[in-house]
Amino acid sequence: MAVYTNVDDAALADFMAAYDLGTVLSFAGIAEGVENSNYLLRTDRANYILTLYEKRVERHDLPFFIEVMQVLADSGMNCPLPVQARDGSILQELMGRPCAVFTFLDGTWSRFPSREKCAELGRSLATMHMNCAPVTRRRTNALGPAAWQPLFDSIGSDANIVGDGMQTKIQERLDTILSSWPDDLPSGVIHADLFPNNVLFIGDRLTGVIDFYFACDDIFAYDLGICLNSWCFEPDGSFNLTKSRAMLRGYQEVRPLSEAETEAIPTLAAGSAMRFFLTRLYDWIHTPKDALVSPKNPMEYWSILRFHQSVSGTTAYGIGL
Amino acid sequence: MAVYTNVDDAALADFMAAYDLGTVLSFAGIAEGVENSNYLLRTDRANYILTLYEKRVERHDLPFFIEVMQVLADSGMNCPLPVQARDGSILQELMGRPCAVFTFLDGTWSRFPSREKCAELGRSLATMHMNCAPVTRRRTNALGPAAWQPLFDSIGSDANIVGDGMQTKIQERLDTILSSWPDDLPSGVIHADLFPNNVLFIGDRLTGVIDFYFACDDIFAYDLGICLNSWCFEPDGSFNLTKSRAMLRGYQEVRPLSEAETEAIPTLAAGSAMRFFLTRLYDWIHTPKDALVSPKNPMEYWSILRFHQSVSGTTAYGIGL
Repeated sequence: MAVYTNVDDAALADFMAAYDLGTVLSFAGIAEGVENSNYLLRTDRANYILTLYEKRVERHDLPFFIEVMQVLADSGMNCPLPVQARDGSILQELMGRPCAVFTFLDGTWSRFPSREKCAELGRSLATMHMNCAPVTRRRTNALGPAAWQPLFDSIGSDANIVGDGMQTKIQERLDTILSSWPDDLPSGVIHADLFPNNVLFIGDRLTGVIDFYFACDDIFAYDLGICLNSWCFEPDGSFNLTKSRAMLRGYQEVRPLSEAETEAIPTLAAGSAMRFFLTRLYDWIHTPKDALVSPKNPMEYWSILRFHQSVSGTTAYGIGL
Repeated sequence: MAVYTNVDDAALADFMAAYDLGTVLSFAGIAEGVENSNYLLRTDRANYILTLYEKRVERHDLPFFIEVMQVLADSGMNCPLPVQARDGSILQELMGRPCAVFTFLDGTWSRFPSREKCAELGRSLATMHMNCAPVTRRRTNALGPAAWQPLFDSIGSDANIVGDGMQTKIQERLDTILSSWPDDLPSGVIHADLFPNNVLFIGDRLTGVIDFYFACDDIFAYDLGICLNSWCFEPDGSFNLTKSRAMLRGYQEVRPLSEAETEAIPTLAAGSAMRFFLTRLYDWIHTPKDALVSPKNPMEYWSILRFHQSVSGTTAYGIGL
């Protein structure tokens, strides 16, 4: 929720001269996205999003993100299409920051997605995994399993702020995850941050997948773990098996999971829970108490992590039911 | 620049059921306005703004603001028209806050408005003053001259933070303003906060006047003083007489100023500078040093205030030239 960089009308007019997008009718910073500044740009032809990349996004990663969106949009998926300037280029500079213009996607995100939306999400996630095949660039998952131990080491005994003995408990659970982490599952480009606020719907129809700025190469089924965690737990912390089954069935309508992938789901979902638990714990400890943006409570993900490490098999997710 | 209250999709759907505005296509918090939460709401019929009134706006003032916008929009002015719910009402409640839906105005605001824009602004300001005549409700200017001495008293010797001896200097200039304040000039509804960011243009055509949440009853020409200060000083602090003349001429094309009003301009503009100087000084002193939103430097308005108290006559504003 942020606009970090202000763009004045004179700078915008200069910038728009490089594009063939019509006359600007309106231009407003929008309070979405925590990594970048986003503006809704409306011209007499269409709506666009202008994104200015702030410090948290690495400049050298931008061509990868742009390629992913371009490949997906070209394949017919509902995701932002990077818009070319008159000279054919996509990445520009504005107010000293790299930036790009994207097509605008209709739809609103759902705080508590229904079972039908979970099924739609599953289908779209599988389609995304398949349709990214032509992407030529590569990007390592900077927040993947190899990053978790160093991240946890940097937190150290501060972990005990969220509970007595937490440093030890986290290390034990992390060891369990890392020792059983699969290394031969189907991989490719994953979204890696497909929370409900990054998926747009009109009614139950999925109309947009956005925010590809964590996309990377990793295990496809790990992306499913991220979605199980962010879509299928209720506000009271309980796991909604009906939604999970709908999501996994939707996924498998498009891309069936192998037996090895299915069996790895508890570990992959636990790993995803660990990743978000650790980054939230880090932010929880490092955000000043009087900051205007409150950090998210990491303990929500601790409870999710414990769920995955306690299940007795994949039927807990609705697979085979 | 803020969205203080989050509205989820379920709450929005319930809310929209009270209106006949079509299907929601998109809903995004926008980073404009410091007093309220504003959402851009797009349906298959039109664009709207949904405003949730936060604590800084007094609930009992809302009917006045709504009436002003309704009277002005009905008169043909480019300002937001409050949209009626199916039952004919305008003020609703959402997420525990009073709220209303308004028509969306095209246009972008200009950080450094040209002479042509200043002339347009003058014409629109005069039109607004005339067209508000049918407004039946009244609202005292809570930040008018009667408020300045108490506000300054609450700052006290903290004023010296911005310069040695400032407490004394401010009191002297405030005494000068208050002792020469006119009490018999034409009055009515004024906007009272018509800075460039509250006026939208497409090219040099004025397409929108927004943010009526400081509107009140006061001297018409005082509103001109606010606009002279916020539109006609250059970034280096110099006064642009060409822009001032364009604004005053534009105003007088629609509503000629009396001799008494003209003569009062230096005092009214100095008073306006004092009002914004004092509120900025207050915020400057009371905003925590590590707050995400930086307070505006009050000294910009001290320099503007000194300008108005040093002019030898109204020719300094381009009147009679």
